[in-house]
Amino acid sequence: MTSMKLILAATTALTLAATGARAEEGMWTFDNFPIARANETLGTSIDQAWLDRVRLSSVKFGGCSAGIVSGEGLVMTNNHCVATCVANLSTQAVNYAETGFTPRTREEEVKCPGGTAEILTDISDVTERVRAAGEGLTGQAYNRARDAEIGRIETEACGDATDKRCQVVTLYRGGQFKLYTYKKYTDVRLAFAPEDRAATFGGDLDNFSFPRFAIDAAFIRLYENDAPAVTATHFVWNADKPVEGTPVFVTGSPGATQRLLTQDQLFTVRDVVLPLDQLIASELRGRLIRFSEESEENAFIAMDPIVGLENTYKRGLGRMRALTDPGFMATRAEGETDFRRRVVSNPELARSAADPWGALTTIQPIARELYPAYALLEGGTGIGTTPVAGGSQLFLWARTLVRGAQERAKPSAERLPEFGDARLSGVQSALFAERPTYPALEQVRMEWWLSKTREWLTVDNPAVRGLLGRESPEELSARLIQGTTLADPAVRRALWEGGMAAVEASDDPMIKYLLSIQDETRAVRSDWETRVQAPTDQAAERLAAARFAAYGDTVYPDATGTLRLTYGKIEGSDVPGQRWGPFTTFAGLWDRATGSAPFDVAPKLLAARDEIDPDTVLNMTLSSDTIGGSSGSPVVNARGEMLGANFDSTVLTQRNAYGYDRNVNRSVIVTTGAVTVALRDVYDMGRLVEELGVD
Amino acid sequence: MTSMKLILAATTALTLAATGARAEEGMWTFDNFPIARANETLGTSIDQAWLDRVRLSSVKFGGCSAGIVSGEGLVMTNNHCVATCVANLSTQAVNYAETGFTPRTREEEVKCPGGTAEILTDISDVTERVRAAGEGLTGQAYNRARDAEIGRIETEACGDATDKRCQVVTLYRGGQFKLYTYKKYTDVRLAFAPEDRAATFGGDLDNFSFPRFAIDAAFIRLYENDAPAVTATHFVWNADKPVEGTPVFVTGSPGATQRLLTQDQLFTVRDVVLPLDQLIASELRGRLIRFSEESEENAFIAMDPIVGLENTYKRGLGRMRALTDPGFMATRAEGETDFRRRVVSNPELARSAADPWGALTTIQPIARELYPAYALLEGGTGIGTTPVAGGSQLFLWARTLVRGAQERAKPSAERLPEFGDARLSGVQSALFAERPTYPALEQVRMEWWLSKTREWLTVDNPAVRGLLGRESPEELSARLIQGTTLADPAVRRALWEGGMAAVEASDDPMIKYLLSIQDETRAVRSDWETRVQAPTDQAAERLAAARFAAYGDTVYPDATGTLRLTYGKIEGSDVPGQRWGPFTTFAGLWDRATGSAPFDVAPKLLAARDEIDPDTVLNMTLSSDTIGGSSGSPVVNARGEMLGANFDSTVLTQRNAYGYDRNVNRSVIVTTGAVTVALRDVYDMGRLVEELGVD
Repeated sequence: MTSMKLILAATTALTLAATGARAEEGMWTFDNFPIARANETLGTSIDQAWLDRVRLSSVKFGGCSAGIVSGEGLVMTNNHCVATCVANLSTQAVNYAETGFTPRTREEEVKCPGGTAEILTDISDVTERVRAAGEGLTGQAYNRARDAEIGRIETEACGDATDKRCQVVTLYRGGQFKLYTYKKYTDVRLAFAPEDRAATFGGDLDNFSFPRFAIDAAFIRLYENDAPAVTATHFVWNADKPVEGTPVFVTGSPGATQRLLTQDQLFTVRDVVLPLDQLIASELRGRLIRFSEESEENAFIAMDPIVGLENTYKRGLGRMRALTDPGFMATRAEGETDFRRRVVSNPELARSAADPWGALTTIQPIARELYPAYALLEGGTGIGTTPVAGGSQLFLWARTLVRGAQERAKPSAERLPEFGDARLSGVQSALFAERPTYPALEQVRMEWWLSKTREWLTVDNPAVRGLLGRESPEELSARLIQGTTLADPAVRRALWEGGMAAVEASDDPMIKYLLSIQDETRAVRSDWETRVQAPTDQAAERLAAARFAAYGDTVYPDATGTLRLTYGKIEGSDVPGQRWGPFTTFAGLWDRATGSAPFDVAPKLLAARDEIDPDTVLNMTLSSDTIGGSSGSPVVNARGEMLGANFDSTVLTQRNAYGYDRNVNRSVIVTTGAVTVALRDVYDMGRLVEELGVD
Repeated sequence: MTSMKLILAATTALTLAATGARAEEGMWTFDNFPIARANETLGTSIDQAWLDRVRLSSVKFGGCSAGIVSGEGLVMTNNHCVATCVANLSTQAVNYAETGFTPRTREEEVKCPGGTAEILTDISDVTERVRAAGEGLTGQAYNRARDAEIGRIETEACGDATDKRCQVVTLYRGGQFKLYTYKKYTDVRLAFAPEDRAATFGGDLDNFSFPRFAIDAAFIRLYENDAPAVTATHFVWNADKPVEGTPVFVTGSPGATQRLLTQDQLFTVRDVVLPLDQLIASELRGRLIRFSEESEENAFIAMDPIVGLENTYKRGLGRMRALTDPGFMATRAEGETDFRRRVVSNPELARSAADPWGALTTIQPIARELYPAYALLEGGTGIGTTPVAGGSQLFLWARTLVRGAQERAKPSAERLPEFGDARLSGVQSALFAERPTYPALEQVRMEWWLSKTREWLTVDNPAVRGLLGRESPEELSARLIQGTTLADPAVRRALWEGGMAAVEASDDPMIKYLLSIQDETRAVRSDWETRVQAPTDQAAERLAAARFAAYGDTVYPDATGTLRLTYGKIEGSDVPGQRWGPFTTFAGLWDRATGSAPFDVAPKLLAARDEIDPDTVLNMTLSSDTIGGSSGSPVVNARGEMLGANFDSTVLTQRNAYGYDRNVNRSVIVTTGAVTVALRDVYDMGRLVEELGVD
């Protein structure tokens, strides 16, 4: 069977927009890419061999995307995708964010702590197995049975292999399950990063906007057996001046879209999820900004966290704006009305769909009630962005150790899914990685988290009483952070390997604390999974099936952090609040620079000003359908040559989470031409230019 | 004519709720209080003489309410209403917020800097004069002409009198204009304040909630000619144990409600106004919290600003919750539907109303577009809560000096209304008051404001370019704050008295800065007034007239910060998330105390524990219709005796801004019994107890 027939047989797939995907809409899987339609829309002639080459040249690097650009494992991604690596390798004295990381020889390229990179080698369908596992079950039992089956499939496929990862991907909100197999690299070295300011010119203010002037590019190198990896294929570097209207493809791993949510579900996001996430993030931002102003040292350690937080926050603002835009919401409501009309007017379809809208409507009051506790205590995985414990690394390590020990005492199928056998090696490599922690920063994070949790859930909430006892957020955070020894990777390794016995015998206060709050926090998670997640999943599957029946084959699944291909053209924008041509140049950068941060040109870049042709295109925009996670995605032309890397999109584009809008959706790209100039004329990285095959 | 006939004649008044006010709903003016209905609802028998006595015993104190409780000018209000006075009188070494302010003799009572108190002595109708002034005009001309006429009325009535204030109050959104005349006291002395923690036990966490355990009470004394004021009348102090179900009246000056907004207007508040205000306030809160953690000194100077900000922020959260509560919004939508149906079904009414909903709908996209600039640059007066310059006192003084000089060069009728002749004495007394300023705190405020303004309006906005030039928010703030001498009241007085010549000759950087940004900021204000405010006012007047025609005489105006009377009963609450009896006691306070801030009992209060009958009622709740500004409002029984002072309401009650909901609306009261205990048994203020006439 072809994959399309499979979908039809299962009647579980769906279209995204109510009226089916339009030209240039869709983050398509590589096993279901609409080759003919793309070629027709763009006037290109790509084929299956082209798709395979592009897929095998595409890399997932942490939460980012990247592309292989040489036969010796060299990979280009965004600078912001290596920012945490750069921060981990830096000290206040030797700060690569300030100087750039420019190793003179390949031997000076340094391993990124905890860094992993993956190439998608195989996709196979496991829908029937997963669906069979959940048959006849409801609530948490339904989810747990499926999770267990997924864990078994992953373990069977990958076993103990350390150079592979197997992942069952849920597509079409449960309409399809596919086993993705990756070639995995755990030795990833930093090969080049520019001065941070060269990549972040304009800072948070220019983030999610255009015109833009940022060399947001960096290089890593994949290693295998302590030698540069030899991969199956790679992109050809094309640094020619880009041309408006050129058809392009963007290959990467967009993180998450919620295009299949019903209007009622979106209202919950608008009314409850985003306000909570954004309001408390804004306070954390204020605390961190003031913290960073207190000393040079604090400025150094808070820089990476602030950039990350501001990025998430501004994205959230764009989403709030989408959900409170009467025009956008009206279009979406019309789509839903049309869809419901089609279902209701077809008796058989109406019967099998069993009113999924009504079911989802019924769940919303519960979701609204439970979301704050779920977000604050368990991170609201997959729906919001609230970082548990404010992202305190020490807290999160302790949680992994405590839960990991508790879960590993059970058979894999009965565990929390993130501790299934197939996931353990990933958990371990994150846990054992050498990373600096900064107690002062950890204190800011935990204080904020405890105080916001107490505020939103109220003092009299039993979980809050369990969390705080009679201590204040400030006292409790200080006691745990000052007393813990988990900053030492050897301590973490010993506790992990010692299992439950070691964890229970530990007198580390952070470990003891995490042990003490498991009842409350697990109950919150279980409540959400039983009363919200499981019934939502079941209704979403019926909705997906109905949508496919109603709209036929112009279907693609929501983004899931897995490899996708999208297409479009090099194009500017001409709508209110967003009017510009497709290109910026170095001349524009010099013009925009005021000298005051964040509009100060990075010193080495400024010093090279006279070497650089001011008309070199720096950044450009595309009409392609991208979203967070697409950062670093290679932009390739119809010949499969790399023209740049996606690194951003505009604030208006953030509606993309809920629906593609061709008028406003624009991806922001750093060009290969600008990167070539940076390597050759600014950072003296001629050896990489040579490796890229530039004349 | 009776006032009701006047309203009918003008056909401009309106009901609040679509179906007319229900029992216990309404913040009524004293010249239109529904005596018969209140007596019927409560089983009381108050009369006009009772109303007059209550009115003349009621005091407006800054943004708060208060009540006269002795023949020697003693006035009770909330402690949080004197918090800024206490902060202004304190130093880090002698910090009355920590110790309480407990003068042993009347001579030790100290003047509150800039404090004024007012008693409403007369109300007269000036509707026809104001309406005539605007006839035939539109846009800003319409508003300016009316503002000018209002200024003339105020000046004619009060002249240069320093012991009176005349204010034309706009009622029913322009349906009525009344001239309010006040007896004004500019010598207001602090007579007693408890330890701050006694008034704020539970801090921000218990704020806007119940059960509650806060002695949020303080006393001021009105002075005239350097002697305690002799007022016409005063409340009798009744410290008896309160009884559930007792009919009560609350007299005070509720700040602002928006109950007459259409659904479309509310969506603008929900989608644009509250998110902006709350998100940026949350960041300021984070900055201030971290700032206050940096040193004892910072903790001292940030305490009052943080409390004020957290109060505004939590109120905003309650409002967001109301506007995103599907049930509440559905009820409101039904009301609007019913109202529109009544209007449309009456051809004459439909003609005269001229579709005010449609007009207001048309204005909303403009309001949504202009609000951010208006809020950030001009404080969005009356709609949001964004403090211009983050509330930097130095900036605001400079603005008053610069604009005051510019405006006073024109005839009164052509000025910005806040600089009309009738307002100048108020402007001056605020400007000349001796108040400490703290450069470090000013820096936090201005930095935040400049950076948020740049972020929300974007770097490329011309007003932002004007505001910042090539400086960063940090550099600019530091230069202005370090260079200005406006902290000295003599400097401010000289600049004010020197007028435009002095301002233009000044080389104070803050003055020069304010001069330099007048074009941009005034343009933003003018734009809002012309395109949003004026057409909104005109539509609101037609809406008000139509509503009155549709629903008859159960009408009261939106709160406007002027004296109102509301009524209800001593009553607990029994709805989800809000279930409790009407009383708390000292026993409950001892139980709730953990010893960790903010749940630590104030030291002097704790020391007196054995002296206090644990069953003494501390706080209680009422069903009366109150809102911010009602703080300090005397709670009186049918005999006109004072039983306590309003100091709060619950988070759910915050929907009160948009509609009264008898099920959830509860005002929180500190009892006269608890205040008597505090004075007598805790703070050794027997002389005040004696003055109150307690045996």
